[in-house]
Amino acid sequence: MEQLKGACIIGQSGGPTAVINASAQGVIQTALASGQITKVYGAAHGIKGVLGDQLYDMGQEDPAELDLMKFTPSSALGSCRYKLADPDVDDTDYQRILEIFKKYDVRYFFYNGGNDSMDTCNKISKYMQKVGYPCNIMGVPKTIDNDLSGTDHCPGYASAAKYIATSCMELYQDARVYDTGMVCIVEIMGRHAGWLAGAAALASWAGSGPDLVYLPEVDFDMDKFLADVKKVYEAQGNCLVAVSEGIHYADGTFVSEAKTSATDGFGHAQLGGLAAMLADVVKKEMGVKVRGIELSLLQRCGAHLASKTDVDEAYAVGKAAVEAAVSGQTDYMVGLDCTRDASGYHCQTKLVPLTEAANTERKVPLEWINAEGNGVKQEFIDYALPLIQGEMDRPLENGMPRFAKLKKVLAK
Amino acid sequence: MEQLKGACIIGQSGGPTAVINASAQGVIQTALASGQITKVYGAAHGIKGVLGDQLYDMGQEDPAELDLMKFTPSSALGSCRYKLADPDVDDTDYQRILEIFKKYDVRYFFYNGGNDSMDTCNKISKYMQKVGYPCNIMGVPKTIDNDLSGTDHCPGYASAAKYIATSCMELYQDARVYDTGMVCIVEIMGRHAGWLAGAAALASWAGSGPDLVYLPEVDFDMDKFLADVKKVYEAQGNCLVAVSEGIHYADGTFVSEAKTSATDGFGHAQLGGLAAMLADVVKKEMGVKVRGIELSLLQRCGAHLASKTDVDEAYAVGKAAVEAAVSGQTDYMVGLDCTRDASGYHCQTKLVPLTEAANTERKVPLEWINAEGNGVKQEFIDYALPLIQGEMDRPLENGMPRFAKLKKVLAK
Repeated sequence: MEQLKGACIIGQSGGPTAVINASAQGVIQTALASGQITKVYGAAHGIKGVLGDQLYDMGQEDPAELDLMKFTPSSALGSCRYKLADPDVDDTDYQRILEIFKKYDVRYFFYNGGNDSMDTCNKISKYMQKVGYPCNIMGVPKTIDNDLSGTDHCPGYASAAKYIATSCMELYQDARVYDTGMVCIVEIMGRHAGWLAGAAALASWAGSGPDLVYLPEVDFDMDKFLADVKKVYEAQGNCLVAVSEGIHYADGTFVSEAKTSATDGFGHAQLGGLAAMLADVVKKEMGVKVRGIELSLLQRCGAHLASKTDVDEAYAVGKAAVEAAVSGQTDYMVGLDCTRDASGYHCQTKLVPLTEAANTERKVPLEWINAEGNGVKQEFIDYALPLIQGEMDRPLENGMPRFAKLKKVLAK
Repeated sequence: MEQLKGACIIGQSGGPTAVINASAQGVIQTALASGQITKVYGAAHGIKGVLGDQLYDMGQEDPAELDLMKFTPSSALGSCRYKLADPDVDDTDYQRILEIFKKYDVRYFFYNGGNDSMDTCNKISKYMQKVGYPCNIMGVPKTIDNDLSGTDHCPGYASAAKYIATSCMELYQDARVYDTGMVCIVEIMGRHAGWLAGAAALASWAGSGPDLVYLPEVDFDMDKFLADVKKVYEAQGNCLVAVSEGIHYADGTFVSEAKTSATDGFGHAQLGGLAAMLADVVKKEMGVKVRGIELSLLQRCGAHLASKTDVDEAYAVGKAAVEAAVSGQTDYMVGLDCTRDASGYHCQTKLVPLTEAANTERKVPLEWINAEGNGVKQEFIDYALPLIQGEMDRPLENGMPRFAKLKKVLAK
């Protein structure tokens, strides 16, 4: 435990969320107020900004604009998908990071991201320890996917879940308005974990949501899917389906795979077009009217439907990361420790070793999914419902959101 | 002008909106409070409910639930796309409508819909006059497309516009988060008029919106489009584009036409898949990362982003329709008469002859579109901005919308 004096860098990485800027705000405002942190730098586009010596001097920002970060979706500092090499194979990037850390006297590094970002954080931390450069390094979690280990849930998830639940409630009203029947398929993000698709079931629980929900935790079977849809359609004359983009056959092949072969920087297949494909299959097999809807980027940037619980927790993990680091902690991700019981929902931050958080994927427990594999049980609702509570009192200008306007003054 | 005593029917038709139920609520509550109207019936699925003798007794609804209609998207009574025949060719449907009107002593008919619904309304009105059945008939306008003639704008448009503007503002933040560049194409509804696509420009005006906006009022040219996108992408490293689903080449062919040949009940081509198609063209031509996003049904049922101005006006047209009808007026659509000047925005209802409103399509004036044909001028902003002002204080339960729950008791 070393209490260091020096500058800090905050970087954001991976797919943005509606509340990732609340975490960055928590880091920046806590760091600016800390006597031990001499300068607060924001890395342009995450670790790429460090490598490229593109650091913003956050002390030059208008405090009122920093306050607006928690209402502003997407990564205000810019994001990246950049995978650091194994330092034992190629330490070029690490040498460069060390050079920049020395140049700006950086003694604190906060990385705001998901699984891959915690891996980046962990690698840098281990390297700095190896070369004996004192630097406290903390991961600040975000991901709408909610698949980070070591935490009850992940900031970013709840706001996406609230967006998905609300949108599905509205779609349910719309997609059954005619007496001529329709099968509507809503595609929801989540490569390997069904936390987001499961959030559609919150709408069903509220009485206006999907009839069927398919998570990637269960192998997908097209014949079973068509039988499910037919059964609902015959009984009700309409059917609303929510599917995770990550649904796959028993052999592991993504159902959407035939549609695209593009991959992102980490080698993940870029999914999409699944809703349209399934709608087409239903149309051909059942001869009914269909519509495929992809929530796409809308679900991860829908700050106007952010959960206040989520925003508050996102800010809290950023704040806790700085507090832990200045007290001498390093090599941790800030996680959330929650209880749900008769007294309500309670949440506090905790520290999770980075090694535990990096590169593992937490999935929806199979016992929370129904026997038919086309919906979730009450356990899922009990888990997710407290997270989507509370609305933000959003600042508006002319009836539209007022987002933070950062000056982004490059450090010299 | 005949002041009639008897029952009324309210029906909803065509694609729903976020505020069509506010208009129905205006009709129902005003009618229930009127001494002249003896019974208030809601037609299940519009005119099909009249033809099929499926009428709900709205007097049996819980008043508190009726109050929630203005927060509930989509057509609460159910909608239809049913085109009445020319009565001179085939008056079967009209005879049946007359039979039902006589059965329930219906002396007032309110039809809540768009262009085609005003046509339905007009035909029924003319038939009732021809056969000498006293009945006051009023059109209550709705359409997100905003293409109805005889009114400054149409209830439903502003809430969709607010949804589109807000979503585009959020997407702009998200779609430029990486330093690796992306062209993102957002597809917006609007078959023949660009009012909705133009609403994306409100986001740009607010500083976080599409770089390019294409309306169907201007012939689309793929080469010009690609040159526009390239220019923005080269200057900024990113490009956000909003396109109307209805963009078409100079010969009138829809750009999306190759994608689908399905048609709806009125013979309109069902468009969709345009964003994905244009994204694919950009990818092939420019070799950059692309994403196509279709706002789809979300934009017409997004009650959580309803404009209070729109909800209030939607209620007002419903109320005005009943007040005019009981005072003896018939054969009108209620329109909106608005002024925008230094004293602000002022709006009041007026009566528009049904013949004027039916089957004509009001488009965005060409002089409101920029010379390049890839954006709108300040005139459009001045027109649309007052309409999206104000937010609804939505009732929530467990962090999710609380929609009206109607009993829908069938009349005997």
